[in-house]
Amino acid sequence: MARTPNFAAGPAALPLAVIERLQGALPEFAGQGAGIMEISHRSAAFDDVLTSAKARLASLLGVPDDYAILFLQGGASMQFYMSALNLLGDSCAPADFLLTGTWSTKAIKEAGRVGAVQGAWDGKSVAYKRVPRPDEITVRSEARYLHYTSNNTIYGTQFHTLPDVGLPLVADLSSDICSRAIDVSKHALLYAGAQKNLGPSGVTAVILSPWAVEQSRRTAKARQGGLPSMLDYGLMVDKNSMFNTPNTFGIFALDQVLAWVQDGGGLSAMSARNQAKADLLYAELDRSDFWVPRADVDSRSLMNVTWRLSSPDLEARFVEEATAAGLHGLKGHRSVGGIRASLYNATSLADVQALVGFMRDFEAKS
Amino acid sequence: MARTPNFAAGPAALPLAVIERLQGALPEFAGQGAGIMEISHRSAAFDDVLTSAKARLASLLGVPDDYAILFLQGGASMQFYMSALNLLGDSCAPADFLLTGTWSTKAIKEAGRVGAVQGAWDGKSVAYKRVPRPDEITVRSEARYLHYTSNNTIYGTQFHTLPDVGLPLVADLSSDICSRAIDVSKHALLYAGAQKNLGPSGVTAVILSPWAVEQSRRTAKARQGGLPSMLDYGLMVDKNSMFNTPNTFGIFALDQVLAWVQDGGGLSAMSARNQAKADLLYAELDRSDFWVPRADVDSRSLMNVTWRLSSPDLEARFVEEATAAGLHGLKGHRSVGGIRASLYNATSLADVQALVGFMRDFEAKS
Repeated sequence: MARTPNFAAGPAALPLAVIERLQGALPEFAGQGAGIMEISHRSAAFDDVLTSAKARLASLLGVPDDYAILFLQGGASMQFYMSALNLLGDSCAPADFLLTGTWSTKAIKEAGRVGAVQGAWDGKSVAYKRVPRPDEITVRSEARYLHYTSNNTIYGTQFHTLPDVGLPLVADLSSDICSRAIDVSKHALLYAGAQKNLGPSGVTAVILSPWAVEQSRRTAKARQGGLPSMLDYGLMVDKNSMFNTPNTFGIFALDQVLAWVQDGGGLSAMSARNQAKADLLYAELDRSDFWVPRADVDSRSLMNVTWRLSSPDLEARFVEEATAAGLHGLKGHRSVGGIRASLYNATSLADVQALVGFMRDFEAKS
Repeated sequence: MARTPNFAAGPAALPLAVIERLQGALPEFAGQGAGIMEISHRSAAFDDVLTSAKARLASLLGVPDDYAILFLQGGASMQFYMSALNLLGDSCAPADFLLTGTWSTKAIKEAGRVGAVQGAWDGKSVAYKRVPRPDEITVRSEARYLHYTSNNTIYGTQFHTLPDVGLPLVADLSSDICSRAIDVSKHALLYAGAQKNLGPSGVTAVILSPWAVEQSRRTAKARQGGLPSMLDYGLMVDKNSMFNTPNTFGIFALDQVLAWVQDGGGLSAMSARNQAKADLLYAELDRSDFWVPRADVDSRSLMNVTWRLSSPDLEARFVEEATAAGLHGLKGHRSVGGIRASLYNATSLADVQALVGFMRDFEAKS
């Protein structure tokens, strides 16, 4: 079967050029006589891969030289706990959270196991249709950081300016990392599961400020029993993500995706392309009352466009007919229903044009 | 470059038939219009993969019906901590460990963060050249389990009978799972990083007895702050390894490796083949004093054959010339030096014959 437009929310579409590169590296890689999955993570050939992946991510995001980059396992869900354990776990220290949907709610729950957490804004009362304005955010001056989820895959909202209210930021960037520029230097910690914009599931990129690394070391000393090795940022930094065997194939795939982003013009080109894709789809949603966009205009996500139709039955028919027409992954998250089109970096403008064409036909005959 | 014999200790050789199957699934999988890395982990197509992988592992190992099978992230190193946290963390309960080398020493260190651990036998005094006989093992009757490492990749030793001294067993099977039959029912918990006999790095198979699952639930209730979600066996069982996005590509690769094992005759055929490979290499090591096998005969590993030559210089030359001759991955672990040939399932008898031929030539000219 041929490849068709893929609007899945994650794991998500990857560039065909990357997939072909991975295919080529599976039986034999870099003159090693074995494939990329079959060589030692301690080999010079894999060290080159790891070094390249770190350098590309640092270059694309403008990561300050004194920050550390890790590639860990367990996804953002593990980082919900690990970040709080390292940054708050010495003294059940305070941290504030922006509650903008499902993922931030999960993040504060895990952090609450080790820190004195509170919501600094809760979008529940507005059905998570938007993210907060800075003047709505109430932080505690003693909070060690403000945690936010940069893009909300389920509700289709996204921060378009940093929630910069004077606290160091900790950000879950899983669903929009490398889709646009970001000021890394405002952050104490950033993390992102790879399976939307960076590669396959099973790799998590983590970027740490010098303060975050030092705080991890303080926590390891202060905490009874220390920090579990696999949850110890300081140790992971010391071991360059290789305390144990990392997901070598996943890191290689991530490096290839980042090479594709660089070859395509970097984040400014990605950002322009993502804006054009989203503009096209939102224009269609705004054109007719047949579509009911979920998110408030100012908070609309460029990555996950969500909308409703007039009934669940009609939504189900939309998804079914779209799938039959070769447009995949459009069903909204099971917790909220509706339609969701995810427009990550690897989704093309032509994919969105095909979707809009289908939508017009669907509306005309409905 | 062509594929050559690969004796790497892990990540390690995979069957070419599996690699070709993975290549085929990367651009398009199961009529989904997208590749195996690009489909939702909640899709029916991926559910089939997960179901198949669990069924194959259960069938091959004879996992009792009331046991649970998980595919997690973080490798055995995460299980060192997670197993103790779940099984001991309610009350800093006691557990005993067989210390047979580097990995068991790491395991007891992580477990000691949450439980009252002790060594029930320590091989340090015999330079880890062998595993204990049952009559040498001193356990505490109140210990909740006895932890052992079934095969020791670094020292090249392996248990050939279970250390069955009346306690439930917890086993790190990372380097010999599915290389031979094992009585799963004697175990409370088994875990294995995939990157030796099961697939690529980044997936960890975990098999839990009903008692282990129940003990996890008791710990979650008893422990202040509960268990972190990603470290909670009970929750992972409830969510069928899909609390968050698992390593979907890794689980697919693991399923394909298990299919290859089944197609090759299952564990009895694997075991016979592995015995023949190891016999051939050990016979060469025993033939001449030029080689100095590391492990005691009764404890020799069928998976990782380790030996010394008369000097580190000669060992370095051996590895260098072997690599030049297309025999890869023979350098001993950096902590112990010497030579190591890993003979996991995917290594063929012909690979070992090529190695033995090289060894004879090397001895003749040295």
